[in-house]
Amino acid sequence: MKKALAPLRVTGRMDRLRALLDSAADGAAVDGLLVTTPANIRWLTGFSGSAGLLLVTRDRAVLATDGRYRTQSAEQVAAAGVGSDLDIAIGGVPAQREALVGVATALGRLGLEADNVSWSAQRRWTETFDGVALVPTSGTVEGLRLVKDGAEVARMERAAAIADEALAAVLPLLSAAADGDLTEARFAAALDDAMRRGGAEESAFETIVASGQNSAKPHARPGDRRIRRGDPVVVDFGAVYDGYRSDMTRTFCVGTAPSGELADVFAVVGEAQRTGVDAVAPGVAAGSVDRACREVIAAAGWAERFEHGTGHGVGLDIHEGPSVGPGSAAILDVGTVVTVEPGVYLPGTGGVRVEDTLVVTEDGSRPLTQFPKEVAV
Amino acid sequence: MKKALAPLRVTGRMDRLRALLDSAADGAAVDGLLVTTPANIRWLTGFSGSAGLLLVTRDRAVLATDGRYRTQSAEQVAAAGVGSDLDIAIGGVPAQREALVGVATALGRLGLEADNVSWSAQRRWTETFDGVALVPTSGTVEGLRLVKDGAEVARMERAAAIADEALAAVLPLLSAAADGDLTEARFAAALDDAMRRGGAEESAFETIVASGQNSAKPHARPGDRRIRRGDPVVVDFGAVYDGYRSDMTRTFCVGTAPSGELADVFAVVGEAQRTGVDAVAPGVAAGSVDRACREVIAAAGWAERFEHGTGHGVGLDIHEGPSVGPGSAAILDVGTVVTVEPGVYLPGTGGVRVEDTLVVTEDGSRPLTQFPKEVAV
Repeated sequence: MKKALAPLRVTGRMDRLRALLDSAADGAAVDGLLVTTPANIRWLTGFSGSAGLLLVTRDRAVLATDGRYRTQSAEQVAAAGVGSDLDIAIGGVPAQREALVGVATALGRLGLEADNVSWSAQRRWTETFDGVALVPTSGTVEGLRLVKDGAEVARMERAAAIADEALAAVLPLLSAAADGDLTEARFAAALDDAMRRGGAEESAFETIVASGQNSAKPHARPGDRRIRRGDPVVVDFGAVYDGYRSDMTRTFCVGTAPSGELADVFAVVGEAQRTGVDAVAPGVAAGSVDRACREVIAAAGWAERFEHGTGHGVGLDIHEGPSVGPGSAAILDVGTVVTVEPGVYLPGTGGVRVEDTLVVTEDGSRPLTQFPKEVAV
Repeated sequence: MKKALAPLRVTGRMDRLRALLDSAADGAAVDGLLVTTPANIRWLTGFSGSAGLLLVTRDRAVLATDGRYRTQSAEQVAAAGVGSDLDIAIGGVPAQREALVGVATALGRLGLEADNVSWSAQRRWTETFDGVALVPTSGTVEGLRLVKDGAEVARMERAAAIADEALAAVLPLLSAAADGDLTEARFAAALDDAMRRGGAEESAFETIVASGQNSAKPHARPGDRRIRRGDPVVVDFGAVYDGYRSDMTRTFCVGTAPSGELADVFAVVGEAQRTGVDAVAPGVAAGSVDRACREVIAAAGWAERFEHGTGHGVGLDIHEGPSVGPGSAAILDVGTVVTVEPGVYLPGTGGVRVEDTLVVTEDGSRPLTQFPKEVAV
């Protein structure tokens, strides 16, 4: 296992959020934001506990959490370089609310993360912050998270390397599967296990292993189906390293090169994916990356068989901004990390998807996932 | 692997929900409920897809989902016995909304599951269902889910048996760990893998393996710590079978019987857990089960070191009603499934937690988790 990376510093991020308060509520100003989305709290403070509330105003910041996280919260915000920038309130729910009310009561308008806060919670906060106008905000911190800094990219690169090495370690199982004694679920478990051995905190999402006819279902879950010679096998998986995720898909053909229509699907999806990757560059609209992939597949007559978007942002969440789908107007920036993952799914024949996670660079992009795109294994 | 169980039938559940509409909104009536919580949709219809919306009115029911689930939704509702009781609308978001609006437009008051619907979603639904009064509801379907039927209990029993067998299969790794070459993360991965081999769809939650000093942290995550002779090791895990979950904790002492204060902790927690299990019976308030456990631990002088509730309901969700905590007034019914999991956590010495998942029976309870409570392994 490689050396751990130096702690990730989050210094300055809360000030960048403060600079957005003037327009956070659909263009209108708020005096503070109650951050309730765990990944946003982690990104702003370094605190990774599952239960936390962060109130950021123009001149203060309070992180409230419960007694389980007393030591962890203090250590993490110190390691992240923001220990002196925020107060930590530890206690049960009433004590946490009291600490937040003490700060919020001076505010005129307070933003709530409306995509994350439940309607019930919004009603409770309205009572708790009596006299403060609560207004919905959406995507404020997420917008800041779109562009990754070097330390974040380094973590995603490490996650991707762990995933690459894990796949290399277990691929012989697939090559040896011609006798039908390997199920999808077994191969998925072996891959998950190899990632953990290699230093992953966990799998980035539920690993997909879809073989034979199952490969034609974009969202198949690994099951008891036995993998056999000639099967296409879609393997879509990723690792988590220090909170950051990787995402990669390879489709293999077991024990032989694909033939007939399946060979055409492999060729077209491979070309579509390369075309999509080539389209990724700073200043480009994400929708044009999607279009580039889609045109290759449409030219082969399978436009209707590419039934999902081309990709998505990745970071602390496995799906985050920007969307790389039809019409997505998001402009790619240096440091944005996105997937490019076209697929074609033909019932009766099988499905093929190929995916890399890429970081946008000055001169195009650099793949974080680097496993070879060999097909026959 | 044992034989698959017959498909679970959900017939009659939507009518039981309809009978609650007269008082679903804090005692006031609604004319229908928009069910957005995936486990509630599954419980009512058998559909297990990740994206679905279910509108239940007094005389109609519509399930809306997207094209990925066209076949699955039709097959699952048919297998569950409600295929003729509901219409399925397949399509993109606009088509799904249109199908729901077509039914909702005749309603005066429509309930939304306020604990599940985000504030953003509530605002969108308010626009979509223009002219319909949206009112918050909470816990309506969850209340029906409290009492499990025989087919549900059979699934949880199967999940628990898979977990028991998996632990038996990997426990020799722990016994052999005295030389320090087994990390917590490796043991957790081996256990997860054994559950999948044994027929689990997945682990019921992130498996906890907490050894040595880590055992004193109730929410420790498995890490790189090497397990050694004499360590207490808390193992908290479960399996999923046909959507239903099990939950069990055993604490072991590696290679030797515990000694000194640690031996006392094992003895007290063991007695507290047996006392809690004995307190489970129909007609009993969940809070009194918590009190029974807590008194044993308090008598030993460790009241402050039992820093969480005694248990929780289990079913399609790993944490569901009823809460088994201090003051919980929920009355246990025949068919309710709860955990009893007291623990004592002493920094410097270590922690011990013992947990079973129990179904309430006419004459008390029956444990679904049955792994022996041996300590020295």
